[in-house]
Amino acid sequence: MRKIAFYGKGGIGKSTLTSSIAAAIASRGYRVMQIGCDPKADSTMNLTGGEKAVPIVNYLLEKGDCDRIQDIATMGYKGIVCFEAGGPKPGTGCAGRGIVTAFELLNELDAFEMYQPDFVLYDVLGDVVCGGFAMPIRNGYAEEVVIITSGEKMALFAAGNIKMAMDHYKDRNYATLRGLILNKRNIDNEETLVRDFAESADTEVIGIVERDAAIQTYEEQNKTVIEGDPSLPVSKRIFEIADTLIHPPAAKQPLSTSNPLEKKVLA
Amino acid sequence: MRKIAFYGKGGIGKSTLTSSIAAAIASRGYRVMQIGCDPKADSTMNLTGGEKAVPIVNYLLEKGDCDRIQDIATMGYKGIVCFEAGGPKPGTGCAGRGIVTAFELLNELDAFEMYQPDFVLYDVLGDVVCGGFAMPIRNGYAEEVVIITSGEKMALFAAGNIKMAMDHYKDRNYATLRGLILNKRNIDNEETLVRDFAESADTEVIGIVERDAAIQTYEEQNKTVIEGDPSLPVSKRIFEIADTLIHPPAAKQPLSTSNPLEKKVLA
Ligand SMILES: Nc1ncnc2c1ncn2[C@@H]1O[C@H](COP(=O)(O)OP(=O)(O)O)[C@@H](O)[C@H]1O
Ligand SMILES: Nc1ncnc2c1ncn2[C@@H]1O[C@H](COP(=O)(O)OP(=O)(O)O)[C@@H](O)[C@H]1O
Ligand code: SF4
Ligand code: SF4
Ligand SMILES: [Mg+2]
Ligand SMILES: [Mg+2]
Repeated sequence: MRKIAFYGKGGIGKSTLTSSIAAAIASRGYRVMQIGCDPKADSTMNLTGGEKAVPIVNYLLEKGDCDRIQDIATMGYKGIVCFEAGGPKPGTGCAGRGIVTAFELLNELDAFEMYQPDFVLYDVLGDVVCGGFAMPIRNGYAEEVVIITSGEKMALFAAGNIKMAMDHYKDRNYATLRGLILNKRNIDNEETLVRDFAESADTEVIGIVERDAAIQTYEEQNKTVIEGDPSLPVSKRIFEIADTLIHPPAAKQPLSTSNPLEKKVLA
Repeated sequence: MRKIAFYGKGGIGKSTLTSSIAAAIASRGYRVMQIGCDPKADSTMNLTGGEKAVPIVNYLLEKGDCDRIQDIATMGYKGIVCFEAGGPKPGTGCAGRGIVTAFELLNELDAFEMYQPDFVLYDVLGDVVCGGFAMPIRNGYAEEVVIITSGEKMALFAAGNIKMAMDHYKDRNYATLRGLILNKRNIDNEETLVRDFAESADTEVIGIVERDAAIQTYEEQNKTVIEGDPSLPVSKRIFEIADTLIHPPAAKQPLSTSNPLEKKVLA
């Protein structure tokens, strides 16, 4: 079982790409589980045909407990098992604590033993600076991290913060940074900006996804572009990323501990 | 003493506009204090000529305690008293808890009695869904809230979350939503989108700021555009917003409790 967390700033395309990569990995014949860890709880909608998976935290708040995994799991495209951590109402409680609660319940209910996934993909909001959102990195939940970014300053800043959080916990050796995915916003020099950032963060760009209106077209039909049309150039890019993740190269260890963006882009 | 919190998504222009409005209010002869509540701790840089105010949380983490307000206050443009709450290292600790700690210290050291500000402006990160960042709203620290947004979906989504957090605490009657400031990103139909959102959130647009390269030009000199060139059209817009805030109309009470964006824009 491989556990990979996709981090990135809100709106950058985490759910879109995580779901598409999940669909691509499942298309290669692997068993996949996707866990949305963003209070928006819309991570898996393009896998479930638009049906919103039950947000675990909100379920627990309402019902007090949950003893059947079937009550919170939603089956998606090609058998992908979908969960949403959910979170407290905006402005109340701790969203990070919500993620932990959801993970604990999944463990308690033996979700991994039950579904035996080959790949578990976490889709995690990365704007937040707190310890709560670092939970998938900290407690061995995710072993590999992929950061999704564009060349925009705020996206790279968030990426730098995620890298810093990983470095902070690196002695425990839980998670390895697998690399960045550039999800293009078509700003000037975008590829150079992101490659420079990757270099300063001692990592690499493992995939580049173009902006493509087909992604939004299929989203309106509650589909990933992989389901919608696997032969499109953008789908091929996503299959390439999936294959890179399926066949991992030797792991790389990060070295620096400061936000690489502070050195480079924000200087 | 009037206490106004400016909320909005990261990168939307909170620090830029809060500082410019602070400068405009100070130019009208009022005493102003600005408190940055974003872990980035760069809220007041355009008021202090680029000198970074001491981030309070980091000061406390390092020194253990603080008993002289002068050690954490920085004097800025036209006597504006500048503070930065700061925050823990990304991925560690609770950023919201950091804001609370900073506020408690300011109270302990009698900051308001000492400087007797007519206006206290808070510049608060609004991406975060947790109770920590709602602190300025919750405990009577800020009495009025202004949300800064563009017409972009994620900016409006964050605005909707902030509104929801306010509604959640509205029974305690602490904070009133004064309105939205549209900080333009020049997307299609931007003004209509934001006015529609304002209507659905039962509030109004109290100012519109154009994108203007002069803002960035003066930022490079560590100045607000108000200090840089008060006669520019964009400066006039900011003076108008300052005057609107100085002379408040009758307060409006919010009615709905759901995220207005879920009804309107995300529908
Ligand atoms: N490469 C792309 N091309 C076109 N649209 C995209 C692309 N990536 C993301 N989007 C769109 O951007 C929006 C935000 O993406 P989403 O995956 O929800 O972001 P996040 O999960 O990071 O908040 C969605 O409407 C999605 O369709
Ligand atoms: N109206 C505007 N015109 C031009 N640039 C702007 C405008 N508003 C903000 N900016 C720029 O956007 C960037 C982000 O603004 P900032 O105030 O730091 O955002 P926040 O505090 O919300 O994270 C800054 O470089 C700033 O100069
Ligand atoms: S740990 Fe994170 S998610 Fe939890 S309250 Fe603190 S900032 Fe919010
Ligand atoms: S830990 Fe983070 S999410 Fe939780 S209350 Fe604190 S700032 Fe908010
Ligand atoms: Mg998402
Ligand atoms: Mg700021």
